[in-house]
Amino acid sequence: MHPKRLTILGVGLLGGSIGLAVRERIKDCRIVGYGPRPAALQQAQELGALDEAYESPARAVREADLVILCAPVGSLGEMLEQVADSLRSGAIVTDVGSTKRTLVETAGRTLPSHARFVGSHPMAGSEKRGVRFARADLFQGAVCITTPTAQTDSAALQSVEEFWKTLGMRTTRLSPEEHDRLLADVSHLPHAVAAALVAIQEGRALNLSGKGFQDLTRIAAGDPGLWRDILIDNRENVRAGIDRLTGELQRLSHLLQQGNAQEVQAWLDAAARIRQGLEN
Amino acid sequence: MHPKRLTILGVGLLGGSIGLAVRERIKDCRIVGYGPRPAALQQAQELGALDEAYESPARAVREADLVILCAPVGSLGEMLEQVADSLRSGAIVTDVGSTKRTLVETAGRTLPSHARFVGSHPMAGSEKRGVRFARADLFQGAVCITTPTAQTDSAALQSVEEFWKTLGMRTTRLSPEEHDRLLADVSHLPHAVAAALVAIQEGRALNLSGKGFQDLTRIAAGDPGLWRDILIDNRENVRAGIDRLTGELQRLSHLLQQGNAQEVQAWLDAAARIRQGLEN
Repeated sequence: MHPKRLTILGVGLLGGSIGLAVRERIKDCRIVGYGPRPAALQQAQELGALDEAYESPARAVREADLVILCAPVGSLGEMLEQVADSLRSGAIVTDVGSTKRTLVETAGRTLPSHARFVGSHPMAGSEKRGVRFARADLFQGAVCITTPTAQTDSAALQSVEEFWKTLGMRTTRLSPEEHDRLLADVSHLPHAVAAALVAIQEGRALNLSGKGFQDLTRIAAGDPGLWRDILIDNRENVRAGIDRLTGELQRLSHLLQQGNAQEVQAWLDAAARIRQGLEN
Repeated sequence: MHPKRLTILGVGLLGGSIGLAVRERIKDCRIVGYGPRPAALQQAQELGALDEAYESPARAVREADLVILCAPVGSLGEMLEQVADSLRSGAIVTDVGSTKRTLVETAGRTLPSHARFVGSHPMAGSEKRGVRFARADLFQGAVCITTPTAQTDSAALQSVEEFWKTLGMRTTRLSPEEHDRLLADVSHLPHAVAAALVAIQEGRALNLSGKGFQDLTRIAAGDPGLWRDILIDNRENVRAGIDRLTGELQRLSHLLQQGNAQEVQAWLDAAARIRQGLEN
């Protein structure tokens, strides 16, 4: 899909990077942005990420054939309500949120029947925040998960997937429920664990921390507001993950209590083999 | 301290790097090595890390004024027993082990009164193993913890600290018990957590893992045999750490269950502030 008029709702790192990538890869597309902060909108225009900017989301989406929600997960539902009445007939709406089940349900309830929603989670980003860190190649080579349901318009789904591919991504499909369950395990739970590992340290221990600890806990420095929304929205899966991780650590604790060297090594071997199979 | 005859017991990444660093920084020091594998000893000699090599640890330590144990934590006690009768009068013995309490106790029981033991933990290394990855600058700028007790000879302690400084390290002192408690929190527990996070994943979730997960779990690829020894030797502290981490995660789980956004954010804020204060 090569939109003629694209509206980006929320112009931070991701929204700004979409603008820059579209500028580079799609000819004759008018790139429109909404953001709550005039200074950020102006910066996005200066960087070439936007052609037009509005401080009203309803105004920004008028006549757009593709609308992308790029705000924090916790504000996406309200944003859908704000723009619902202003979407043109046939408009496709997607998003970049890290959780999908709640948003897909809200979109089904909120949007008019003449608009078509497709959930997206482009898995690209950075600990850095703000449009000043936007890059046209942020999405190159990364994976975008789309989350169709039985209600999803199949032409809109194909268009959205084509759009992300144009930005250099590979796409894969999961149901919203599967997406949230798998991402809890591989992203949301790890964030919580990194934060907990930092939280329990004494200052004297932190002074002795090396590269291993720093790599392990780097994500804990991420934006607490964004992560609050993600953890709360996906709390059932995150809580189940906490229970499974706790169980696994208690199993190790029991092996250590027994001083069972063979079983401790087998436990470490299994994890090392799996980890060695991943990229660095 | 500038030893005239240095014996390195165990010539892998750390032992080999000590050899290369001493070659570069200390004139007129004969560098002697022991290792169980002739091929590794030969490689160490070819790389310039050793002048002489022996397949008997007792033979290797004869006439040495400084002996450094560089074998895995689990074999250090046995190694002390093997060399005890061959140490010359006044010899200083130290080590590079990641746990200290057990070894310091063993040294006190095992070594003759004419030898002097000082526990060391140079905090440098790599996931890579083997003398072929040895580097003369491995220790440059890193911290070495020494673990003196009331029984430690103060001249030997100063000599050992001076030796590590000659290799480019900063030194700091902790009791063996404090060392093991703090290192459990900042190194041994994190290793166990990274392994547990890998172990609980489905393959489909791993396929979706990104840079955050990979950074967080990188240490889980480390040598299971080495880590088995460390976790078992330091099991009381590691088990206490597992309980504290589990408690912290259950606290988050409770806040999520309540949907308490303000408290969840405060919990994440505290960790993010601490993590932002560390180096990257």
